[in-house]
Amino acid sequence: MSQSIGATSAGRGRSGPSGRTRILLSVPAAEAGAFFPPDTRRALAALGEVREIEPKELMTPESFRAAAEGVQVLVTAWGFPQLDAARLAAAPDLRFVMHAASSLHALVGDDFWATGIPVSQAGAAMAPAVAELSLTFTLSLLRRTHRLDHALRSGASWQAAREVERAREIGGAVIGVVGASRTGRRYIEACRALGADVMVYDPYVAETDPLGPFCVTLPELLASSDVVALHAPATDETRGLIGAAEIAAIRDGGLFVNTARPSIVDMDALYDAVAPGRIDAALDVFDAEPLPGGDRWRALPNVLLTPHLAGATADSRRRAGRIVVDEVRRHLRGEPLVHALSRADLERMG
Amino acid sequence: MSQSIGATSAGRGRSGPSGRTRILLSVPAAEAGAFFPPDTRRALAALGEVREIEPKELMTPESFRAAAEGVQVLVTAWGFPQLDAARLAAAPDLRFVMHAASSLHALVGDDFWATGIPVSQAGAAMAPAVAELSLTFTLSLLRRTHRLDHALRSGASWQAAREVERAREIGGAVIGVVGASRTGRRYIEACRALGADVMVYDPYVAETDPLGPFCVTLPELLASSDVVALHAPATDETRGLIGAAEIAAIRDGGLFVNTARPSIVDMDALYDAVAPGRIDAALDVFDAEPLPGGDRWRALPNVLLTPHLAGATADSRRRAGRIVVDEVRRHLRGEPLVHALSRADLERMG
Repeated sequence: MSQSIGATSAGRGRSGPSGRTRILLSVPAAEAGAFFPPDTRRALAALGEVREIEPKELMTPESFRAAAEGVQVLVTAWGFPQLDAARLAAAPDLRFVMHAASSLHALVGDDFWATGIPVSQAGAAMAPAVAELSLTFTLSLLRRTHRLDHALRSGASWQAAREVERAREIGGAVIGVVGASRTGRRYIEACRALGADVMVYDPYVAETDPLGPFCVTLPELLASSDVVALHAPATDETRGLIGAAEIAAIRDGGLFVNTARPSIVDMDALYDAVAPGRIDAALDVFDAEPLPGGDRWRALPNVLLTPHLAGATADSRRRAGRIVVDEVRRHLRGEPLVHALSRADLERMG
Repeated sequence: MSQSIGATSAGRGRSGPSGRTRILLSVPAAEAGAFFPPDTRRALAALGEVREIEPKELMTPESFRAAAEGVQVLVTAWGFPQLDAARLAAAPDLRFVMHAASSLHALVGDDFWATGIPVSQAGAAMAPAVAELSLTFTLSLLRRTHRLDHALRSGASWQAAREVERAREIGGAVIGVVGASRTGRRYIEACRALGADVMVYDPYVAETDPLGPFCVTLPELLASSDVVALHAPATDETRGLIGAAEIAAIRDGGLFVNTARPSIVDMDALYDAVAPGRIDAALDVFDAEPLPGGDRWRALPNVLLTPHLAGATADSRRRAGRIVVDEVRRHLRGEPLVHALSRADLERMG
């Protein structure tokens, strides 16, 4: 995660006609205010000449070229077009890309990596938000609020609604965490603060890691946990990690939480275990997003559903905006970047 | 909460024909296994001769008299008939009443207090469970999981479901706690562990109390809190404490959590603020319980409902069973009781 050497081209200046760094800020209008409230926006404006153009207005080669002219720093989030060879050629002064969101896959590919331009992302801003939704899911499933609320809303009698398996407290519950990611570690901290016992499956955790002594095999985790919570990245290695056999290994009455990525899970096998009530699930991510109106998951009384918003809190957006400003400042001062990713980082992180 | 002097009657023995203390265990069959798993049951049996009769079988004077004969220790939970003069006369050897649940109002009145027989309750077992449901409610409302889940279940489009007010994290949220009860204090600990700022309204908190510096007036609390959570007892003093004016003082977008008692709140005024979406609410208690099938609360998308189960976790039942055994042992050994309540305690605690 060290700063790459920028593809500085001799003879090309680092500043625009005004002598100031040109910053193109291109995030969806619906998110701009969340990322950049007035104080953060002022801090960014102090770093250069900021032009703000929505990504949807940059889809034609002409509009992109006009917007990219003289731009040295590009700030993106979602919906920005891929930085392929043609677009990179239209942005010859580009020295730094700062992605205010997390996943870089849609933004950068082979052409970009070939330039050596450094790229940073603000995924650190999201980890607390994702961990907290995972905690909210965990408590909800343990306390059966999803089943109780759904029963009362469906018109079930008070007594019928109360006839669910008795609630469990998180104090003393065994939480199995798949993936000791940044998010997973935040989640573990929170669960432990509330009295849970945690076990971890992550083949990359070193013995010397504080989590080392809490690592177990995946079969052991699945068989021993009251709650299985996914915090692994979506990589080739984790695709289908939780398959039919793994889901079958979750104990009866087990609780399944996914705020990570759907590719980690065989969602058909999960559905087959959840639909008859053998296990309950809380899901923020789905194979098909947007989830169709009549999707099978929407009808089950023993699931809790949210539309892929784990990282999207007001707080995480504000944190991301501040990361953007601090990281752009580091770039401009030639200081080491804190949130830069290499191509290898990206492959490992998913 | 010190041990009262038992109404020991000269000439009446403390033990049954076998020479052992007679213990009448009378809790609903549906709860007996939760309170008394095998190990706790064995521990109770080691203290005396335990007879187990369901409370519903003690409703006639004859059945009560037959069951109460020679009983020195009575263990109750819910559904046990009031210990009025007639029933007390039928239990002349009674020396101690141990209530495995919390509220004593249905069990003891003037006649009982006149006897001087000590009575203990296991409310301490419930506090962590109630606090945790209150935390679950708090996180759910902040993260909008109730609105998101209800929208997806109702068939709303993915995009429409996502168009709720942006979620807030508990880290940095301001939580207003009404009532620094045992439950309230557990809830405060948990909220703080997750990074929340807490303010408290409770006129009985002393300046020297660790919570003293965090106490504010009720108007201040209502106007400044992201979440208002009730943890006050149901007493004459707290009846209607949160009335129409107080509900109007909750900020727009405020979140309201009640796992305490409905008598504290003007539920009509609360409904009028929640129904148009001005504030959201999570409720475990209601004016009319059982809540009728077509009750108005069941239809609102911005409420989260549970059927008065805040204290009813598997863990809290087990804790209560252990409190019963330990307290009965203290009584039999003449040690100070830890969970005894006086009449004055009861009036203050609600």
